[in-house]
Amino acid sequence: MTLTDDLLAGNRRALARTITLVENDGPDAHAALAALYPRTGQAHILGVTGAPGTGKSTLVNALAKAYRRRGFTVGIVAVDPTSPFTGGALLGDRVRMRDLSGDPGIFIRSMATRGSLGGLAQATADVILALDAAGFQRVIVETVGVGQAEVDIASTTHTTVVVEAPGLGDEVQAIKAGVLEIADILVVNKADREGADKTMTALHMMLGMGMRYANHHGRTMAVDGVAAVEPAGWTTPIIKTVALRDTGVDELLEAVEAHRTYLLESGEMQQREEDRAHTSLIHILQASVLRRLNSRVSGDHLHQLVAEVANRELDPYSAADQLLPAVLSAQ
Amino acid sequence: MTLTDDLLAGNRRALARTITLVENDGPDAHAALAALYPRTGQAHILGVTGAPGTGKSTLVNALAKAYRRRGFTVGIVAVDPTSPFTGGALLGDRVRMRDLSGDPGIFIRSMATRGSLGGLAQATADVILALDAAGFQRVIVETVGVGQAEVDIASTTHTTVVVEAPGLGDEVQAIKAGVLEIADILVVNKADREGADKTMTALHMMLGMGMRYANHHGRTMAVDGVAAVEPAGWTTPIIKTVALRDTGVDELLEAVEAHRTYLLESGEMQQREEDRAHTSLIHILQASVLRRLNSRVSGDHLHQLVAEVANRELDPYSAADQLLPAVLSAQ
Repeated sequence: MTLTDDLLAGNRRALARTITLVENDGPDAHAALAALYPRTGQAHILGVTGAPGTGKSTLVNALAKAYRRRGFTVGIVAVDPTSPFTGGALLGDRVRMRDLSGDPGIFIRSMATRGSLGGLAQATADVILALDAAGFQRVIVETVGVGQAEVDIASTTHTTVVVEAPGLGDEVQAIKAGVLEIADILVVNKADREGADKTMTALHMMLGMGMRYANHHGRTMAVDGVAAVEPAGWTTPIIKTVALRDTGVDELLEAVEAHRTYLLESGEMQQREEDRAHTSLIHILQASVLRRLNSRVSGDHLHQLVAEVANRELDPYSAADQLLPAVLSAQ
Repeated sequence: MTLTDDLLAGNRRALARTITLVENDGPDAHAALAALYPRTGQAHILGVTGAPGTGKSTLVNALAKAYRRRGFTVGIVAVDPTSPFTGGALLGDRVRMRDLSGDPGIFIRSMATRGSLGGLAQATADVILALDAAGFQRVIVETVGVGQAEVDIASTTHTTVVVEAPGLGDEVQAIKAGVLEIADILVVNKADREGADKTMTALHMMLGMGMRYANHHGRTMAVDGVAAVEPAGWTTPIIKTVALRDTGVDELLEAVEAHRTYLLESGEMQQREEDRAHTSLIHILQASVLRRLNSRVSGDHLHQLVAEVANRELDPYSAADQLLPAVLSAQ
């Protein structure tokens, strides 16, 4: 049996080894992913994102347990782009392991950045692929922070949950239009804290300002004061939770499942799958260009050009033009 | 006189038009940037980053005014990767304009995302280049959020200031190791608020845990309980500010200038310039590959491959292999 056969047969160690292979981005990784790919497409991929301090990890744990109670298997991918050395990711992992360990229906993987050049989104997509092929029915991708990485990773998921919390500073700053644009579901976590109503009001106001947002899938959301109604029929709900006390978590699960049903029945799931495929293609092509640069241009030559640019003897666009033939050549 | 001549002569409208050209990434943009490039290298580039709610914008405004009092000209680039439709950026701009407008020694530009494929960091680098060539002596790049974009943008600056504030939730979450790794200077803003001492303590503890971080320039910072001491001689200071009341802002300015002096005297400035040049080269090459994909592969062909991947008839790695010859071909 090959590694991929073992993975498809449900062997957890084969899954872990495959993910390690994928993270290291070795030459065998592509073959393994290609072999697994036809067995994917069953899992529902859920992104959970929000600013630091919103209690995302606790909410993801509570949601995973709620899914387990209903018999679903759950994969969790915790992405921490701010921690190249996995310090943060490991800390989160330890808390998680204590909470969820010992359940064979849950698989948890933390990921730190793979270079600063867009590699993380593709690595995340690859790990999702492995979990999907291994038969996990729901895959939750948790991202820390509010920034480009979240928007990138939203393009690898089916349903994006944006988590807010009271008391994170000026509401206008904490609740960014750009993050609302990627939200299929909004959550106000820590809703028992002072200021929860203020946060709800701020969200309602943002949605009620009469602005029309185009979200990352290019759809336009109209606004009716409380929730954004997309013309095609999805109403972005705002859900209050207290993840630590398991309050509102079942409502969140129901909202995710309702969104999945909506995607499938409206035919929009096909569009999201094509968006995911398109993003993957671009990322894979860009990575292969970097690989060609590293294998075909000597370190000395590259460093010489870099030094000339740093010393203003050459501009970076002309330097790139000098490198392009080597990167593009067939040999 | 050409547009670049006008810019170099100090014409603000020429600068604004050049930046618009650069943001639209037209074919003339590369020629303009190449023409300006030899005139760059004089500005000190300062990155200011931190989580939402830390009061970064207010701090950047106060710092800009402090620089003006000392006779420096200041360019401000406000980068908001979460707002593809500039809603957030425009809001910040309006507050700014009221505060800083009418001073010809200040130039402010807001930038939203340019696609989700790493274009923002390069666009930011290009705008910095234009401001540098136009003679602005200090360029402050403000980034919203804590994520990959900040780490990318840190690679385009000389001095990175990371802003924290009290009351942003669990300290362990709010103060991420990955963000500390890119910090040359740490600021606790809103230091008159409850919890400021707790935030200071948390920062000291993070730095004092005895962990050795390698920052994004590959240096290792040792730790002495209060500040991280890099072997080469830079001690990362922690500065308390209340930007709204202008408290601590002069100390921050002094710290930035001390860091600049350190970079120049230690020879590390050359290393940072080479890092910036290297990152630019990679980004320009990746962008040119995307441009070739768009010009050489028909939309129909690309969509057909994307649909096959979405339907699991083809895996994304094989699809990328099919596209590569067209992207790489000389014609």
